[in-house]
Amino acid sequence: MQTGPGITDMPESDMARPLLERDHGGSVGPWGPSSGGTVGILGTGDFARSLATCLLCSGFKVVVGSRNPKRNAGIFPAEAELMSQEEAVKRAELLFVALYKEHYCTLRSLAGPLAHKILIDVSNNQEVNTKGESNAEYLASLFPHSTVVKGFNVVSAWALQSGPKDGNKQVLLCSNCPEARSHVAGIARSLGFTPVDMGSLSSAREIENIPLRLLPFWKVPLVLALGLFLFFYLYNFVRAVLHPYLIENQNKFYKMPLELLNITLPCVSYVLLSLVYVPGVLAAFYQLRRGTKYRRFPHWLDQWLLHRKQIGLVSFFCACLHALYSLSLPMRRSARYLLISDAVKQVKAGAGDAWVEEQVWRMEIYVSFGIMALGLLSLLAVTSLPSVSNSLNWREFTFIQSQLGLGALLVSTLHTLAFGWNRAFDGKFYKFCLPPTFTLTLVVPSAIILARVALLLPCAHRRLMRIRRGWERRSSAQIMTPNRMEEAPESSSTL
Amino acid sequence: MQTGPGITDMPESDMARPLLERDHGGSVGPWGPSSGGTVGILGTGDFARSLATCLLCSGFKVVVGSRNPKRNAGIFPAEAELMSQEEAVKRAELLFVALYKEHYCTLRSLAGPLAHKILIDVSNNQEVNTKGESNAEYLASLFPHSTVVKGFNVVSAWALQSGPKDGNKQVLLCSNCPEARSHVAGIARSLGFTPVDMGSLSSAREIENIPLRLLPFWKVPLVLALGLFLFFYLYNFVRAVLHPYLIENQNKFYKMPLELLNITLPCVSYVLLSLVYVPGVLAAFYQLRRGTKYRRFPHWLDQWLLHRKQIGLVSFFCACLHALYSLSLPMRRSARYLLISDAVKQVKAGAGDAWVEEQVWRMEIYVSFGIMALGLLSLLAVTSLPSVSNSLNWREFTFIQSQLGLGALLVSTLHTLAFGWNRAFDGKFYKFCLPPTFTLTLVVPSAIILARVALLLPCAHRRLMRIRRGWERRSSAQIMTPNRMEEAPESSSTL
Amino acid sequence: MQTGPGITDMPESDMARPLLERDHGGSVGPWGPSSGGTVGILGTGDFARSLATCLLCSGFKVVVGSRNPKRNAGIFPAEAELMSQEEAVKRAELLFVALYKEHYCTLRSLAGPLAHKILIDVSNNQEVNTKGESNAEYLASLFPHSTVVKGFNVVSAWALQSGPKDGNKQVLLCSNCPEARSHVAGIARSLGFTPVDMGSLSSAREIENIPLRLLPFWKVPLVLALGLFLFFYLYNFVRAVLHPYLIENQNKFYKMPLELLNITLPCVSYVLLSLVYVPGVLAAFYQLRRGTKYRRFPHWLDQWLLHRKQIGLVSFFCACLHALYSLSLPMRRSARYLLISDAVKQVKAGAGDAWVEEQVWRMEIYVSFGIMALGLLSLLAVTSLPSVSNSLNWREFTFIQSQLGLGALLVSTLHTLAFGWNRAFDGKFYKFCLPPTFTLTLVVPSAIILARVALLLPCAHRRLMRIRRGWERRSSAQIMTPNRMEEAPESSSTL
Repeated sequence: MQTGPGITDMPESDMARPLLERDHGGSVGPWGPSSGGTVGILGTGDFARSLATCLLCSGFKVVVGSRNPKRNAGIFPAEAELMSQEEAVKRAELLFVALYKEHYCTLRSLAGPLAHKILIDVSNNQEVNTKGESNAEYLASLFPHSTVVKGFNVVSAWALQSGPKDGNKQVLLCSNCPEARSHVAGIARSLGFTPVDMGSLSSAREIENIPLRLLPFWKVPLVLALGLFLFFYLYNFVRAVLHPYLIENQNKFYKMPLELLNITLPCVSYVLLSLVYVPGVLAAFYQLRRGTKYRRFPHWLDQWLLHRKQIGLVSFFCACLHALYSLSLPMRRSARYLLISDAVKQVKAGAGDAWVEEQVWRMEIYVSFGIMALGLLSLLAVTSLPSVSNSLNWREFTFIQSQLGLGALLVSTLHTLAFGWNRAFDGKFYKFCLPPTFTLTLVVPSAIILARVALLLPCAHRRLMRIRRGWERRSSAQIMTPNRMEEAPESSSTL
Repeated sequence: MQTGPGITDMPESDMARPLLERDHGGSVGPWGPSSGGTVGILGTGDFARSLATCLLCSGFKVVVGSRNPKRNAGIFPAEAELMSQEEAVKRAELLFVALYKEHYCTLRSLAGPLAHKILIDVSNNQEVNTKGESNAEYLASLFPHSTVVKGFNVVSAWALQSGPKDGNKQVLLCSNCPEARSHVAGIARSLGFTPVDMGSLSSAREIENIPLRLLPFWKVPLVLALGLFLFFYLYNFVRAVLHPYLIENQNKFYKMPLELLNITLPCVSYVLLSLVYVPGVLAAFYQLRRGTKYRRFPHWLDQWLLHRKQIGLVSFFCACLHALYSLSLPMRRSARYLLISDAVKQVKAGAGDAWVEEQVWRMEIYVSFGIMALGLLSLLAVTSLPSVSNSLNWREFTFIQSQLGLGALLVSTLHTLAFGWNRAFDGKFYKFCLPPTFTLTLVVPSAIILARVALLLPCAHRRLMRIRRGWERRSSAQIMTPNRMEEAPESSSTL
Repeated sequence: MQTGPGITDMPESDMARPLLERDHGGSVGPWGPSSGGTVGILGTGDFARSLATCLLCSGFKVVVGSRNPKRNAGIFPAEAELMSQEEAVKRAELLFVALYKEHYCTLRSLAGPLAHKILIDVSNNQEVNTKGESNAEYLASLFPHSTVVKGFNVVSAWALQSGPKDGNKQVLLCSNCPEARSHVAGIARSLGFTPVDMGSLSSAREIENIPLRLLPFWKVPLVLALGLFLFFYLYNFVRAVLHPYLIENQNKFYKMPLELLNITLPCVSYVLLSLVYVPGVLAAFYQLRRGTKYRRFPHWLDQWLLHRKQIGLVSFFCACLHALYSLSLPMRRSARYLLISDAVKQVKAGAGDAWVEEQVWRMEIYVSFGIMALGLLSLLAVTSLPSVSNSLNWREFTFIQSQLGLGALLVSTLHTLAFGWNRAFDGKFYKFCLPPTFTLTLVVPSAIILARVALLLPCAHRRLMRIRRGWERRSSAQIMTPNRMEEAPESSSTL
């Protein structure tokens, strides 16, 4: 596949030797000056090619070990020397192993020359490896006298060629040899990536699983949304379809594909939105009770704090669908038929005007609040885009996500209350003794709003601000620690 | 808070000494080779920790000065040497002061050893400092024999750990000592940031206020939008509610929450959209009259040019709300009641058909134009996202923002004209002698469109193009300056 | 124009000499140590100024050659030495030529001193140059004894000052002298850009045309969309307007501005969406038939694969407009008049209820599916934003674009089928023997869905997976190539 402008024959032979090489000019590490800054690559696939180009561009000398050096001659940049695997291993002190795991064993004959050299395992798996040996550990077991570093597997061939992007700049590394690890970290930096140290080689499985991760932060929010959806859909089905069918003998099953969805989605959206603001309130209460911010929150609370963005976005998605469904209501045939039938009834009744002032005001108000809430939520959603949130400073991000978010919750609550009107207190809206759906959704948001108001009381607010500046209650720590400079816990929401 | 993969024990001791250090190998600056590339950090908070990790990753030696070295031993990477503050000051020629301003005085006893060293003030304030002394100047006054550099305060602990993102790559620096400033600029570059020189230490207050800025470019557009909103809401209220109430004795107050909003929002949106294109036209006329592009525009025009993007986005937001409000009109109870009442009237009148061909065509046309205008505006809004506009070249960006934007203005004008139809010339649409609202909104856009047409006339167009290529009228400059290469003034809109 | 915080007087004179300089300390290239890491700039415009600042920030020594050194003294950073062009040429071995092409000839007198030096042509044109000589080649013809490198023209003055962004990080370079090219590549890297080698100077025209490109990937999709739009609009016009007018003598011309658009847009959107998934299926069949993934696809298929994202986004845009048009249907006067007239008819007929159960169900179902399809498409559109897709790993991106995209196609098909109901088999929906429009749109999507199902059959699926892991059928390649590591062809969609 073509992947953009070709980088095929950049003659870099005259370029700088790598930074790293120069820095170790006087030392006698295993990758001493004898290696001449030469990096080896075993393998001739896409990744090997892109890696060679990228290394050459950054001033490294590159030798490529191939089983068929002649056959692959054309596909590598001219400055990369193609040779047999044996020769490449001899020439380089550090080698990228760009082979599939199943072909590692083909290198066995090279165990001798590979001894005391650094092997970088860049391989990925096809499927998530939950408990087996990692590829890197397997490689290390094959070559016990070599030093294996796991890394670069999260980087694509494309990112190597076109330069790292914001999103995939990090290169996670692990190895049992700290020197080898920091050596490879230096190479990653020279190539423009941000190395992240993940410790010993036992982390390799975790690193190998990263490119196979499928939206891990979205699982809980989606399951949550699905659960809420099923509950509210069933609840509404009983109230709006089953009750008329059983009690009034009316066939309202046509409501299932659209109207029931439309009264279920706002419930899901509203409850999810309130769940975004629960963990922040809980965290504040924890800090107030403990009198310090230096103790960890319980694991579940940490996880909840980390999933707020995703929960909020699912809430916004449901709100958008609710808006579309609501706006489509009057164009349906059923609405048309009901309207005509009402007009006919009106004519038969002889009454000229069907106007009910209260119903008119109720609907004008709740529709208007609903649109405002959607407008505020859409601002929150836009500022969740990585490129937008990156361009905000911390105060701006907090203002939008916290103040504007609570504003959206408040307007949503007004939307719900205006929609509900006096129905919560009117017995005829209780079907099978089940209260109107909107009353159920109000529980969490009301609690959040009350708790937020409580936290704004001067005594609580002042104390919380002091705690977040690093102040600790004597009982929780023996000494004052004036020289800590920490960010408030909300900062974790910037991730 | 967990903020991503932990970077805890990266053993970088064998790594390169910093770039900067090597380059000064032969020089005898105040941070000469005796310092051994060692950077000191005073403080043990989150920021200090992240800074230590980041410096180690980039190959610096790091010593951390703590008041309780033993207590803080566990929380720093193993390669960062923890010691007393006195020792740290002795070991490093350059020290980051990662303390809150109120604890600066605790360092006073170290004034002697700190003399002739570089202190980097990274502190932020809680509130905007409009006229007091900056933290950095306060630090400089405490240690008159040290050199203070302000900087890194715009960087978060999180950005230090995870690598700088597009949006927060810049590190603003200032100092009274240019050598110290460029030295710290070198460190910033080594860490992957883009240093920006802000001159002498008197700029420190400005730099300290940056992280406290709250969407500065949005204030004027939002105030403008609010002002327009209030004016048009009131105007529409008088025409659509007060006039029927006073003159025809009809109660139309139910229109306030929704219908009045819906006829006010498009006015705000349309006027704001036209205001986006006013400054470009004014700038062109300025350049034509002065015969050069090398003279500055008046300050207000520069500011206006810089706020175009925000004004345009507020306009788009209002247009979206207008669309939602319009689409919600037929689902309201009031619409239903009026429809039924019309049907009943029709039956009583005995007429079979209420069809008015002119009204049908008017509405089909203006609704269609309205949707087209919203579609064009949404394209403009999407290309305003940082990640999208970054991926466009200058010509593409100009084409979309200028050509497509004017297209949107034109289609909006057609939407308005089709909506207005012949009402501007029909006396019965004048309430209290107030003309229909749409006529007011047409003033600015019509002027813009005419001015744009005038600028397309060959004589004006050719002259303007020459001016923007660097040509100057003799009277305004004594000499021709053929070797200037400048971008057209629109380029400032790419910011 | 102001373009952000000014970088005016950063004193970097004490900074490191450029990386490149140090590396060549011992070599005797044309830019040997005698040049002292000094870079020259000829020209004093915006670009020259920004370039000077940027070079100084990265540790280069900068001399600026001006025809009026005194006049331009104030506008350059203090560390950049301003001098006559002659002097600048003498001082630097490498010079950026920041002049317009029409002023190149003014340098002729410097041909002697310029000999054996590197000239970097950074110029751009006003218009696309389709077959003439490139600026760089013209410069090379003027100075046959100098080495010309084309580059940096894609970078804006603003990007030089504020640091490169994700989108414009690449600097395309070409030259007939590989050493000069790699030397300039080193400078580009020092400034934070990603150099891309484009080969010999004959590529200069191509490089010069890049900043003049106007959305090249959008042309084919937009022309395609326009063609489909015109076809379906005409088809619908004949069926919905012309047929009633000629046969039933009914005037339905009022449908042209809105209703016809509304039934045309979904056809365009649906066909475009299916065209996104055609090339992937074709590529799979090609690979299956050839038994390898190492042979190139035909050019047209490659191009089609590269345009999928744009085709999909045009499809989404049409779907959004369709949603807006559909939702606006009931608020039109025509809808109101038809409804009232229906009500009157109903009253006259004496029937109390107009309810048609089948029509109700049909509409509830297709509206609901339509909203779901739009929801899925909007997820695809959001993940097409550069900043969002950059934050996904390859598996996540593939999952969303492939699985979710096919899901959207499937739901759209259900929307179409429910809309069509039994009309394809009912003669009275055939106007002038033309079948209902929806039947035409179903052809391609149905074929895609069937082909996808076929590819999921175990025999085809297993073989395809093996081919994409690098397996080759013996007949197509003499030897097995186990050590290739390539990405699946879908990876090209990540561009």
